[in-house]
Amino acid sequence: MNALQARILKEGKNLGEGILKVDSFVNHQVDPTLMNECGQLFARLFAEVGATKILTAEISGIAPALTTGIHLGLPVVYARKSKPITMPDQVYLTLAPSHTKGRMVELIVSPEYLSNGEKILIIDDFLASGQTILGLVRLAEASGAKVVGIGALIEKTFEGGRDLLKAVNVPIESIARIKSMDAGTIEFVD
Amino acid sequence: MNALQARILKEGKNLGEGILKVDSFVNHQVDPTLMNECGQLFARLFAEVGATKILTAEISGIAPALTTGIHLGLPVVYARKSKPITMPDQVYLTLAPSHTKGRMVELIVSPEYLSNGEKILIIDDFLASGQTILGLVRLAEASGAKVVGIGALIEKTFEGGRDLLKAVNVPIESIARIKSMDAGTIEFVD
Repeated sequence: MNALQARILKEGKNLGEGILKVDSFVNHQVDPTLMNECGQLFARLFAEVGATKILTAEISGIAPALTTGIHLGLPVVYARKSKPITMPDQVYLTLAPSHTKGRMVELIVSPEYLSNGEKILIIDDFLASGQTILGLVRLAEASGAKVVGIGALIEKTFEGGRDLLKAVNVPIESIARIKSMDAGTIEFVD
Repeated sequence: MNALQARILKEGKNLGEGILKVDSFVNHQVDPTLMNECGQLFARLFAEVGATKILTAEISGIAPALTTGIHLGLPVVYARKSKPITMPDQVYLTLAPSHTKGRMVELIVSPEYLSNGEKILIIDDFLASGQTILGLVRLAEASGAKVVGIGALIEKTFEGGRDLLKAVNVPIESIARIKSMDAGTIEFVD
């Protein structure tokens, strides 16, 4: 069992309906030491994919993407969910359903920071239905960049995201793979 | 001149009306190596204040707060701007005006992660009017925690935030202090 899995068992809360609360170390309070270890692990797992940039989605993807960026020495772009005044009028925009918000959210990246020829490593906190990550794939592809890998801290295998992302045809790595959250428990893939 | 100042001169854009665009290394695309250096510097500047936790505001405060947390070995809490479903009903909430959004935004922290007796180091990307940081101070104080230091990557001294925060009576440190953005230029405090 790795440090992230151990922490999920210790502090994660199964709120039912597939919602895992990890607010004490990932989503509201962040454990920087744990995030740094996860970033180091992603850097090792994706050392050979030739990424030139990391792409994530605000807000909770920023911490693992940043620590991965520290260890790979790569810039990190986080897709915004609303367009700040500093962004140009012309942007890459896609929609993705948010499980925790119960509605569609926008994912927006400025063409200033995604471009043709870039090789993109996508890092996010959760891989569940895969819809947010697929949205990031669409943004990357819209810019002419190529996705070369996908990493998530926590995967909920029972939501099928990995199957959805199979068509992207790149390595998919997650640090804690949860196969079941039935009856209030949290069970990892062996 | 430090690395952050040099980068601001190289890539920062003065958009007028006091708005500094640093989207290529802080606010949309992040340079993890630079953020790590800034975190290291904050860790050195605040080594003696006895902080037990770092508090910041989503979204752009997360990167410098996280790297400071890595170097100080402290947990980071980021105030949310909307309440996720994983948060309890009873929260600490305050309002602060957002310069870049042109409206009031909520800053919300769960009482699970801020409590009586904590010593809080506030880290954010900008210290401008000081209103967001003052909102974080109110959240910390509402919980019974004590603020022990305030750090910002970039300070715009001409917006007066440091004066506003004087009453908090803690060390205030910023890595790049801009005294003027008149006529399209960016001038640092000597």
